[in-house]
Amino acid sequence: MGTDSGRRPDYTNGRKRDEDLTAAILEAAGELLIEVGFDRLRIEDVAEQAGAGKGSIYRRWATKEALLAEAIRVMPEYEPDITDDPVADLRAIITRRCLSASNKPDLVPGLISAMRADDRIERAVKDGYTLDYLRHAIGRIIGADHPHLDLLTDLTPAIALHRSAFTPETLDPHNTVEEIITLIQSIASLTTT
Amino acid sequence: MGTDSGRRPDYTNGRKRDEDLTAAILEAAGELLIEVGFDRLRIEDVAEQAGAGKGSIYRRWATKEALLAEAIRVMPEYEPDITDDPVADLRAIITRRCLSASNKPDLVPGLISAMRADDRIERAVKDGYTLDYLRHAIGRIIGADHPHLDLLTDLTPAIALHRSAFTPETLDPHNTVEEIITLIQSIASLTTT
Repeated sequence: MGTDSGRRPDYTNGRKRDEDLTAAILEAAGELLIEVGFDRLRIEDVAEQAGAGKGSIYRRWATKEALLAEAIRVMPEYEPDITDDPVADLRAIITRRCLSASNKPDLVPGLISAMRADDRIERAVKDGYTLDYLRHAIGRIIGADHPHLDLLTDLTPAIALHRSAFTPETLDPHNTVEEIITLIQSIASLTTT
Repeated sequence: MGTDSGRRPDYTNGRKRDEDLTAAILEAAGELLIEVGFDRLRIEDVAEQAGAGKGSIYRRWATKEALLAEAIRVMPEYEPDITDDPVADLRAIITRRCLSASNKPDLVPGLISAMRADDRIERAVKDGYTLDYLRHAIGRIIGADHPHLDLLTDLTPAIALHRSAFTPETLDPHNTVEEIITLIQSIASLTTT
């Protein structure tokens, strides 16, 4: 297709080139995945959002799972703002995570189901899974070699997932953010006294 | 059946009475659920462990999901030992949970999938879900009205689930137990100074 469009510019004018279309489909799939979750994601909607035909998608990926596994691999990494107020920066990160869990309580449980159902999705998620931005943000407050840093790094996604799955009535984002921030501040105050 | 066995003792001698058989099936289902997880639990195995026929099970519950939902509802509540050493008691509870997550990393992710697939299972799990024993054990160390008590109560199952699902290589039970215990002891030391 790319070669064709080079040779026949009139004919393909305004169409997306092959690699651009692939990128547009993956981006649309990633966005829709976060918006509607695994179960309700439909190839038709990916096609519409990417400005592609369903055929263009199925020519590239045989199944929805194959498409989503690749979409997960190419998702842009989250890069939080860094200011000179470490607590405000951490609060922004934690708020984002807790709001997302509260608005879409099935997103991560749905991801877990999809990972159990399909090895490629499990691999793609685990390979790309990083909490480095959280570790860095908490390290700025309690110290990068603090003995509690591992546990406190896992704390926010762990609590958000656990409450989503088992006690969604306790997943009040404002409350959860304050619980986590005050715990980390308690630990920070301990190390500086 | 219960009436029959009362009227014809010779004929039914050694057989379980109807309600005993129901209880035995539910107990076997609950035990196997924890042992092998949702996906691999087979009605044949429940029947064998309960000393029942498959027919006796399907006469009572039309589906595996219906059986498991009721088995979850009648599971005995966990009652940890209480000694005069609150930290040792808490360590025993946390060790039990972390060892279980480490030995059976799919147990809780599998439960989450089953809850998403079947409303009765979701209801049964959420209705019976309690961490009161953890809250009580931690409260004995940091105080029952401590502001961090809610978060610290959720901490152990949350971390065990999160690491099981996303970073199983970090779910070393010994390490995880020590991380949690030392965090709680840090919080405790903070409140007493």
